[in-house]
Amino acid sequence: MQRYFVDRTNWTEDGVVIKGDDVHHMTRVMRMQEGDAFICIHPVHGPALCEIDKIAPGEKVTGAVREWVTEDKELPVKVTIVQSLGKGDKLEQVVQKGTELGACSFIPFEAKRSVVKWDAKKAKKKISRLQKIAKEASEQSERSTIPDVSDVMSMTELIRQSYQYDVKMIAYEREARSENHRSLAEQLQQVKRGQSVIILFGPEGGFTPEEADQLFLSDFLPVRLGPRILRMETAPLYFLSSLSYQIEELP
Amino acid sequence: MQRYFVDRTNWTEDGVVIKGDDVHHMTRVMRMQEGDAFICIHPVHGPALCEIDKIAPGEKVTGAVREWVTEDKELPVKVTIVQSLGKGDKLEQVVQKGTELGACSFIPFEAKRSVVKWDAKKAKKKISRLQKIAKEASEQSERSTIPDVSDVMSMTELIRQSYQYDVKMIAYEREARSENHRSLAEQLQQVKRGQSVIILFGPEGGFTPEEADQLFLSDFLPVRLGPRILRMETAPLYFLSSLSYQIEELP
Repeated sequence: MQRYFVDRTNWTEDGVVIKGDDVHHMTRVMRMQEGDAFICIHPVHGPALCEIDKIAPGEKVTGAVREWVTEDKELPVKVTIVQSLGKGDKLEQVVQKGTELGACSFIPFEAKRSVVKWDAKKAKKKISRLQKIAKEASEQSERSTIPDVSDVMSMTELIRQSYQYDVKMIAYEREARSENHRSLAEQLQQVKRGQSVIILFGPEGGFTPEEADQLFLSDFLPVRLGPRILRMETAPLYFLSSLSYQIEELP
Repeated sequence: MQRYFVDRTNWTEDGVVIKGDDVHHMTRVMRMQEGDAFICIHPVHGPALCEIDKIAPGEKVTGAVREWVTEDKELPVKVTIVQSLGKGDKLEQVVQKGTELGACSFIPFEAKRSVVKWDAKKAKKKISRLQKIAKEASEQSERSTIPDVSDVMSMTELIRQSYQYDVKMIAYEREARSENHRSLAEQLQQVKRGQSVIILFGPEGGFTPEEADQLFLSDFLPVRLGPRILRMETAPLYFLSSLSYQIEELP
């Protein structure tokens, strides 16, 4: 069933008002009509099954709450993906597919070898675009929260913030090439439901040895993601899929 | 190290000749020079460490084999991804990232709800493009084989060919929504090294109930890929990552 995330201020006790782009989506794209059912997600109380009361075309849709729904679709580990800036639409791909795969938040990171740089103006535009992608991907994958996309973070800030997390990892290409690599499973098997994980992914050229050392000194553990060398935008998808498999699918 | 797949006919006993696009890549993109080392992959004997003997600019590069290399980077299960035709560059994404993640072959499939249709001319062009993407992704992810991309297959042909495989699955959205779903792990834990797996992924609108029934009758087992609803191009990446995690990372 079609679902929409609705800001707190647009809810009454037993009703909801949809405004903005979602009105166009409901009435034009989905061609919904009065009486049709849909799901609205309250930022605190979660999803509710609603029914359309009234459509004011191009302006708003008013809905009535039929019942609150209990869902269990969120990845039970809070994963923060720190993604180095890369060429083309790589960050968009990571946010879109990473959201489907259950990530909790994304932090863009300007690594030493990031070919692309974001100035303040570009960063603002990019981040607002990434937030929109995260919202749409959450709706499409039937999640009940929207991942957060933060501002670009520096190494210092990242290391400072990393102490809030239960588990800290870095996807490190050399681990994939090493014969004595640690297995990813060794680390994922230790992650418990309810914990928080932060993991860093390098740019096209990988992290510099200095960056890697700085992260190792701050207790980030290197992991490999299988034996093959993955593109920067594929690596987080491997990680999230494996974590979901370990926590949500294995007995 | 940079690697190139070289046709059988371009090998001598202890040497190799590189022609075509790869010459441009070696001399212009990578700016390699005489004496530089690189990896060439023989379609039967696998990878060899080579050294450039001579460059005939724009024409060919002649290399000498220094030593044959033993690698263990291929996913030890042969996975065939049957991907329904979809909008935009979705098949390109699946072939590129699926190759990085270890798939053995790809079969494009025109499902009932595929919005996109390929006529004979378009199919030829598309498949040759997908084959090129598979080759480049194999080189980039340091694989020693290039996955095969076959012609578009009909349901009848697909079912006929499916009896060659040890394990047959279908990614079925309803499994993700069902409370009594089978766990993916139950099925992946039974897959053994050396076996072959074929798995089908539906188009944007999913398989029709008739298509699903036809596949179930032919012993395809439905699997869910975690509890969230994945896009058609994300689903095969979840599957391949989980299989790699199960077989290559778990003890």
